[in-house]
Formats: sequence, structure tokens, C-alpha cells
Amino acid sequence: MTSTATPVNNGVNVDFLLTAREALAAQPEGANFTWRVENTWVKGTHSRTSVHGFFGLGAEQTHHKEFVFDGDHPEVFSAEDQGPTPVELLLVSLASCLTAGVAAVAQNREIQLRSVSATLEGDMDIRGILGVDPEVRNGFNRIKVTYTVDADATPDEIKALVAQSQKRSAVYDIITNPTNVIVEVS
Amino acid sequence: MTSTATPVNNGVNVDFLLTAREALAAQPEGANFTWRVENTWVKGTHSRTSVHGFFGLGAEQTHHKEFVFDGDHPEVFSAEDQGPTPVELLLVSLASCLTAGVAAVAQNREIQLRSVSATLEGDMDIRGILGVDPEVRNGFNRIKVTYTVDADATPDEIKALVAQSQKRSAVYDIITNPTNVIVEVS
Repeated sequence: MTSTATPVNNGVNVDFLLTAREALAAQPEGANFTWRVENTWVKGTHSRTSVHGFFGLGAEQTHHKEFVFDGDHPEVFSAEDQGPTPVELLLVSLASCLTAGVAAVAQNREIQLRSVSATLEGDMDIRGILGVDPEVRNGFNRIKVTYTVDADATPDEIKALVAQSQKRSAVYDIITNPTNVIVEVS
Repeated sequence: MTSTATPVNNGVNVDFLLTAREALAAQPEGANFTWRVENTWVKGTHSRTSVHGFFGLGAEQTHHKEFVFDGDHPEVFSAEDQGPTPVELLLVSLASCLTAGVAAVAQNREIQLRSVSATLEGDMDIRGILGVDPEVRNGFNRIKVTYTVDADATPDEIKALVAQSQKRSAVYDIITNPTNVIVEVS
């Protein structure tokens, strides 16, 4: 199988992204986005979060529909397991960010992807959240991401692709660097 | 309406959590959890992530079913909007963690909750992810969380409740403090 006859198509509109980059370099105020979610407690550790509107490109925007997510604790914590745990949802977020980046970078580098999959694992000592030992952190000790990529590229090109996705990933940045969170009660 | 006649019930089994705290203080190896997700690229910036098994309490565990999530970029990025953006999923994760904490802490403090809701907003300058300016970070500049809580408690008790949830939150810790992420290609 050769890729010389057909143009590379990973389904990412890179021309649009390059045009947006130029436009926002000239008009940086359009680059200010506010992403937003609404959360409602259901019962116990079960809550429901909806994602619909956001602000960006100088105007209020909406997704084509509202996306709704349940979060809960599992049965081994004596909860009802109505959804994944919050820390699993964080891994979902990181996975979707890095994989979108792999596809976008591959398109920009004219690498045809055939398949991309990843396993993400987060190690955590739950003595932190249970308050057993103040020396134990609440969050993950580390996250390990392992990609398997089948693409029209050498192993080194694939490694470089994944590394560039990491470099441009919003969620990777938020997790690996400190991010300010303000919590208020209205 | 008074709460003296009926015991406080927010649906959280605090006795279990207190017992688990003692048990894991005595046998800390049971506290080592590994949370895990599997991600598969679909097309463009659209990928799908499933959550099912995890390791904890010394054994492999499973949720009662597989939870599946789509992530994508929105139409304003010339993508197909098949799911929320990865950064919105991160807000979903934070919301579900803090709200589960509010319910658990309220139960422990014998505060009856009537309703809990929160709005989470993350501000981001997308010149970071577009690579316009290396001085602009990829992730959120800040996240603002605003809780509205109706409970059988004073405003100060409610503020203390939300503050304690923050203090014990795994996702709040991961976002506000640096967390090591290792990315490999198999």
C-alpha cells in the first residue's frame, strides 16, 4: 500500500487552523475563550454535568447539542457506580486531547494515520483522599500514557508526532503544570 | 422545616469510608489504585474513550458497566463537534470530584443537603494551542468554580463544607499542583 496516489486525509482541516492562527495573531482578543460546564448533585457521590455553551471568537457559541455526563464513586467505595470516578474522567479528558493532537499534527505533517489507540493509567494512593496520611497527595502519583499508532510513517516520525501533540496539548499542560482554581460559594 | 426528627441522609455511606480509612491505615498496600481508560481515534479530532476496569484493594475491579465518551473539537474549529472538547471534559471531571466531596463532607458533618449546583468556567487563550505565541500557555489561565448550596446549615458552615471538599479533592490536587505524565509509543 502506498500513499503517493491519494492526498493525506485524517479528517482534520489544517488549512483552517493555519488561517485561524494568522487571524488570531493579528486580532488576539478573538483568542480569549471561556469553556463552561454546569454541575448538579443527584444523590450521594453521584452528580450530573452538562456541557453546552462557551464563549470564543468574540461571541457566545454553542455545541450542536448538550452533552451530559454522570460521575460517581464505585461500588467498592460503597457508592452506586452511576458513572466513572472523577479521576477517570480526567484521564478521558487527557486522552481525547492528546489523540486530537496526534491527528492534527499528522495532518500538518502529511502523515496518513490508519489507527491510533492509547491506554492511560493513573496511579493513586487513596490514603490521600481518605485523610489517612497528610504526606500522601490526593491526586495521581503519575499518569502513564501508551500509544499504539499505525501510520504511513517511520517509528521515529510516529514518536515525534506524539511528542508534538504533547507539546501543544491544553490538558497535558493543565495537568503537568499548576493551574489556578478559584472556588466560591454564591 | 426542621431536621431534628430525621437523621441526616445525603446518600453517602460515611461509616464505610471511616472504616476504610482505618483498614487502609493498617494495610496501606490496599490503598494503591490504578485507574485506567482506553482511547481510540475515530476521525479528525474525534476520539472515543472507554472506562471499565481498574485496580484497587489488592485486586482487579470493574464498574458495573463500560462507560463510553466521545471527545471532539467544535464547529468553530472546523471540526464535527461529536463531543465536548477535552478541556470541557476536564471541567466535568473537576465538577464531579468537588460535588462528590461536598456530599461526603456534609454527611460526615451531619449537614442535610437539599440541593447543590455549580458553574465551572475555564479561561483560555487559544493562541497557546495554535502556536501563535510561545509566551501563551496551552491550558487554562484559571478556572472559576461557583457553588450554590441549599442545606440545613449556616452560610459559614456551607463555605467550610465546600472548602473541605477542595482540600480532599483528587482532581483539584491534580489540576492545581504539577502531576507527572509519561507518554510513550509502544
